[in-house]
Amino acid sequence: MIRSIEWIGSGVRFIDQTKLPTEEVYVETHELSVLAEAIASLRIRGAPALGIAAAYGIVLGLNNSVEVTGEKLRSDFEKAASLITSTRPTAINLFWAVERMRGVLHRSQQRSPRETIEQLLLEAKTIHREDEEMCAAIGRFGAELVPQQATILTHCNTGALATGGEGTAQAIITTAAAQGKNISVFADETRPLLQGARLTAWELQKHGINVTLITDNTAASVMKRKKVDLVVVGADRIAANGDTANKIGTYNVAIIAKEHVIPFYVAAPTSTIDSSLKNGEMIPVEERKAEEVTEGFGTRTAPYGVKVFNPAFDVTPNKYITAIVTEHGVIRPPYDVSIVHVMKKAVQGV
Amino acid sequence: MIRSIEWIGSGVRFIDQTKLPTEEVYVETHELSVLAEAIASLRIRGAPALGIAAAYGIVLGLNNSVEVTGEKLRSDFEKAASLITSTRPTAINLFWAVERMRGVLHRSQQRSPRETIEQLLLEAKTIHREDEEMCAAIGRFGAELVPQQATILTHCNTGALATGGEGTAQAIITTAAAQGKNISVFADETRPLLQGARLTAWELQKHGINVTLITDNTAASVMKRKKVDLVVVGADRIAANGDTANKIGTYNVAIIAKEHVIPFYVAAPTSTIDSSLKNGEMIPVEERKAEEVTEGFGTRTAPYGVKVFNPAFDVTPNKYITAIVTEHGVIRPPYDVSIVHVMKKAVQGV
Repeated sequence: MIRSIEWIGSGVRFIDQTKLPTEEVYVETHELSVLAEAIASLRIRGAPALGIAAAYGIVLGLNNSVEVTGEKLRSDFEKAASLITSTRPTAINLFWAVERMRGVLHRSQQRSPRETIEQLLLEAKTIHREDEEMCAAIGRFGAELVPQQATILTHCNTGALATGGEGTAQAIITTAAAQGKNISVFADETRPLLQGARLTAWELQKHGINVTLITDNTAASVMKRKKVDLVVVGADRIAANGDTANKIGTYNVAIIAKEHVIPFYVAAPTSTIDSSLKNGEMIPVEERKAEEVTEGFGTRTAPYGVKVFNPAFDVTPNKYITAIVTEHGVIRPPYDVSIVHVMKKAVQGV
Repeated sequence: MIRSIEWIGSGVRFIDQTKLPTEEVYVETHELSVLAEAIASLRIRGAPALGIAAAYGIVLGLNNSVEVTGEKLRSDFEKAASLITSTRPTAINLFWAVERMRGVLHRSQQRSPRETIEQLLLEAKTIHREDEEMCAAIGRFGAELVPQQATILTHCNTGALATGGEGTAQAIITTAAAQGKNISVFADETRPLLQGARLTAWELQKHGINVTLITDNTAASVMKRKKVDLVVVGADRIAANGDTANKIGTYNVAIIAKEHVIPFYVAAPTSTIDSSLKNGEMIPVEERKAEEVTEGFGTRTAPYGVKVFNPAFDVTPNKYITAIVTEHGVIRPPYDVSIVHVMKKAVQGV
């Protein structure tokens, strides 16, 4: 299994994702500064992986605080927390993980600094393990939807690189393959940032899975000319009615799949569901800078001064989604009902 | 108006399309060797533009044949013809234009070399003018389909750069704008070769038309979130039933347009219609090299050894096509009937 990040002895080891797909470089460090730089420069990326990195980062930041006073420990913690969250101020998972770690700090007032740091490391490992288990559960539930022989089309990257485990949508692919199913994959390259070409193709190749890279423009041809049994994609945010925000182009794929009568599955942890949003129209869509489109490959490929519309995500209405695979099971339409049900399970930890 | 190629006095002037979109470089030459190199290295591209270049190239090749014998003239002609057709041996328009020029040579047996060369130049200019008129007619017929206020989505490049006139689908846009209609355009970048970003965005900007560049993945979002009134695309080959082969991704756009109830128009000269092909399944689809996808613009963006499926075209079934705009008028379903009708007009030159 590929591990985007892991705790080894007294430090972390992570894969430098900016070197992919042509070089596979792992970095080992005991220094928070090295880890923070890696987050800031996207060597480590993917929402769940960032949360895990932040938690381990807090522990690295306290490496020299074993022999200090409780007060000094708390001030060292805040220094580390502030450095970590400053690396990518919009990455919500960094803040979420730091908050969880701060909870442990608060509950450790009676402990020595050494014991407190041990508790913090335990919490970081727990965050990591929970993510790994979530990936495994999604993979297990999703693999039940995959025939013995299957060609799967996927969009963007939803694999081990982005998470602490096997990924979300991609865990369905790798789990089905590990169960001995005969799996072929078409991976959309996923412009503008080419996560499909750079990351998904690389990960599936490492898994020994039969993967074919296509431009996003080729998805409809593939569905028509080749046998595609199902589509699996991830999600950035799911509204209470099942409308799903995900990487730009997901909505295109969903429409094209429906036209070819191919099941379209979304895979995401229940933490992705935002029940406060009634529907997808309430999901804000980030617009990113023009250069991702106009100079995507280091070469200027569009005229200077041209207007660009570059939304990071699109919203796929629930009617295109055959089912949503969560760590608590597969839910189906009507989503307004099934989402309430699965969120209850999530709260109860079933 | 942008002119991809034109005759000026005693030589040709063409725009070096490999320098676009960042530099606008025109080359003037009296040398066939310079023109042939320009064709071979894609400085001149686009099927109709290649035919025009070939015809002018024959004339350039006879620059020093004014004072020779008839026999020497014919052998100089064949040398020029052979150099021109060797530049891109699969570009059918080069061969077609050379054949038309050879017809003039054969009919000029009684003429002096000087008079023959004059006749050949006249024929080259006729080929150019016919293409220009064809573009103008498509633009005129197509513009009738465009509302007074219109947002148009287009895919790939179908403009002046590829033809001797205003283009095919793009002529509809520029003609409607020239008629004073209020036109906005979304241009798909069109992976893998980015003709939309490099050429279409540049051409429309030159025309002063309000153009916004998007990744191919953004087309569905644009149709949903912005008001898109119509889609116009070109065609590489149209079967007898209206099924249309065009740049990869056209079929995606057609499906997405249908889902949003947006008219989808194909613009192409009747010479694109191949009535010998009963339907689109009989159109052979060229597969191109993997590197167009894996190292699009000088940077390797996919793992080494990854399998790639890179078809140059896809086939859009007739049911997605609202109408086909030809130089003899707009035809509509059922295409098996309307195509027979328009081909009769084409033969009669109506």
